[in-house]
Amino acid sequence: METTKSISTFQFFTKEQLLAHWQGHRALSRRVLEAFPEKELFEFSIGGMRTYAQLAKEMISMAAPTAKGLATDTWEEHNEELTELKTKEDLLANWDDSTKIINEYWDQIPEDRFQQTVVAFGQYEDKGYCTLLYIIENEVHHRGQGFVYLRALGITPPNFWERD
Amino acid sequence: METTKSISTFQFFTKEQLLAHWQGHRALSRRVLEAFPEKELFEFSIGGMRTYAQLAKEMISMAAPTAKGLATDTWEEHNEELTELKTKEDLLANWDDSTKIINEYWDQIPEDRFQQTVVAFGQYEDKGYCTLLYIIENEVHHRGQGFVYLRALGITPPNFWERD
Repeated sequence: METTKSISTFQFFTKEQLLAHWQGHRALSRRVLEAFPEKELFEFSIGGMRTYAQLAKEMISMAAPTAKGLATDTWEEHNEELTELKTKEDLLANWDDSTKIINEYWDQIPEDRFQQTVVAFGQYEDKGYCTLLYIIENEVHHRGQGFVYLRALGITPPNFWERD
Repeated sequence: METTKSISTFQFFTKEQLLAHWQGHRALSRRVLEAFPEKELFEFSIGGMRTYAQLAKEMISMAAPTAKGLATDTWEEHNEELTELKTKEDLLANWDDSTKIINEYWDQIPEDRFQQTVVAFGQYEDKGYCTLLYIIENEVHHRGQGFVYLRALGITPPNFWERD
């Protein structure tokens, strides 16, 4: 009797497509950061929430260290204070450094890492794909909040669908 | 001479993991919807933006039709007005119907659909994976805005990381 076994060929996206997708989001988030006036970036908030500078620092604190952690399985302690980043220019420069670091580490991430269990930042245990989705979607979540801040300030945010 | 060809084994997540991830987001979005008082759901907004009822209708208008479209390659015309949904109860009931419809169509989505070009809602041409990520992330984006609305109303939103 012949038996056939169906082998999953499911590939949602390639590794290259995933990197492009992630960096596309980061390009949009950078434009949102850029759209804030200097003062409001560090002072404006709604309902007791964090300022957009604080939210952007959280994004920065997770992005490149996650690429490095997935590539090397070595995780830095999470630090979202980043007190050395005091101006919009500092944040944008650090953002651009992170973009390069992510690209550099990307090729080193083993293809099977995303299905392995990782302990992100030495404390968050989950599958690799959950860890990466978490930090991308956390950025989308907080960036959406930045859109509200901009609208409340009378500033038109960039288009959500533009990612270049 | 023997040549070896490296075949990509990259699988970020399985199809089942992707569905669970999507539905996890939708469960959180449902809790955000539920957290709004009836009146504010349909009336409150910031900076001239849409109300959360309108944002939730947009989410509903895209979720199940995308699962159906990816499964059948037949796309309904996009309709986010959904004027028949007049109360929070209506929205929640429709949300739950959508959850079932997505689960029903999910198994029928061909594994290679996500790398194929689709014309979502008869007008948005993109790869299948881009279409699905767009509607998931659009929901995360607008839900993040809902968090700001809730905070501005003095209501503590659900935790971003809880997805059950």
